[in-house]
Amino acid sequence: MAPPGNFASLLRARRGYLGTVGPQGSPRVLPVCFTWAGDMIWTAIDGKPKKTDFPQRLRDIGGEPKVCFTVDRWDEDWSRLAWLQARGRAHALPEGAETDRARAALRDKYPQYQSTPLQGPVIRLDVEDWVGWDANTADD
Amino acid sequence: MAPPGNFASLLRARRGYLGTVGPQGSPRVLPVCFTWAGDMIWTAIDGKPKKTDFPQRLRDIGGEPKVCFTVDRWDEDWSRLAWLQARGRAHALPEGAETDRARAALRDKYPQYQSTPLQGPVIRLDVEDWVGWDANTADD
Repeated sequence: MAPPGNFASLLRARRGYLGTVGPQGSPRVLPVCFTWAGDMIWTAIDGKPKKTDFPQRLRDIGGEPKVCFTVDRWDEDWSRLAWLQARGRAHALPEGAETDRARAALRDKYPQYQSTPLQGPVIRLDVEDWVGWDANTADD
Repeated sequence: MAPPGNFASLLRARRGYLGTVGPQGSPRVLPVCFTWAGDMIWTAIDGKPKKTDFPQRLRDIGGEPKVCFTVDRWDEDWSRLAWLQARGRAHALPEGAETDRARAALRDKYPQYQSTPLQGPVIRLDVEDWVGWDANTADD
C-alpha cells in the first residue's frame, strides 16, 4: 500500500504533524521530523530540548496506539493546496536493525542530526489508511 | 489568558493543524485556516472543495469536543524551532453576531475569501491550556 496518486511528493516535507490521543482522550498535535518508506513512517526522540524526560508522545501511543500523521502543502494560491493523512498505529521499536536503519535514514534526510544526537526511542507508524486531499480532485 | 511569552507571534501563521478525535477514538490532524483573539480560535467550513457534504471535523467535535490546535515555526536552523499548542474544546457556533465577526476576521486575514465562499459553520475553539515550546527555553 502506498500513498494515493501524486500525494507521495508531500512526504518530502521537512516536518509532519503527529496527532496522538492522551490518557483523558484529549488529542495532541506535535510537529515532528520523520522519514518514510512504503506504508511505514518513522520518527525518533532526538536531542532537541524536551519538556520532560519521557516525552508525552511516547506516553500517548503507549496508551492509545492510534495516530494520524499529516503533511501538507500550503500555497497562497488555494488551487494548489494539498494534504495527506497517514492513519494507523504507532509504537516505540525495540533497539535493533530496524532502529539502526531508521536513524540512518533520519541522518540522511536531516544534516542537523550530525550535531543533534538521536539517542531516544524510534517510533514506527504502520499506516493502515492513506487519505489524500487536494483542491483540484476533492470533489471527484 | 493569552499565549505564553513570545509564542503569540506563531499565531500569525497562515494555517494551523487541528487535531480532533473521531468516533472510534482515532485522532485526525487537518490543516485549517483560522483567526485568533485572546483565548479563542475560529475556523470555518469554507468553499474549498470537500470530500463530503458534512466535513469530518464537525462530526468529530460533535462527538468529542476536545481538540488540539497547533502552529509552529520550521527552520533549518533548529535553534529557531518553535511550536504552540492550544488545547481546549471546540463547537460549531449558531449563526449570529459572533459568526459574522469570525467570518469578517477570516476575510480580513485571507484575501482568498473574496472569491472563496464562507458559507459553512464557524467553529470556535475555547482554549483551556496553551503549551508553547521553543528550542531555547524548553529545558528551563
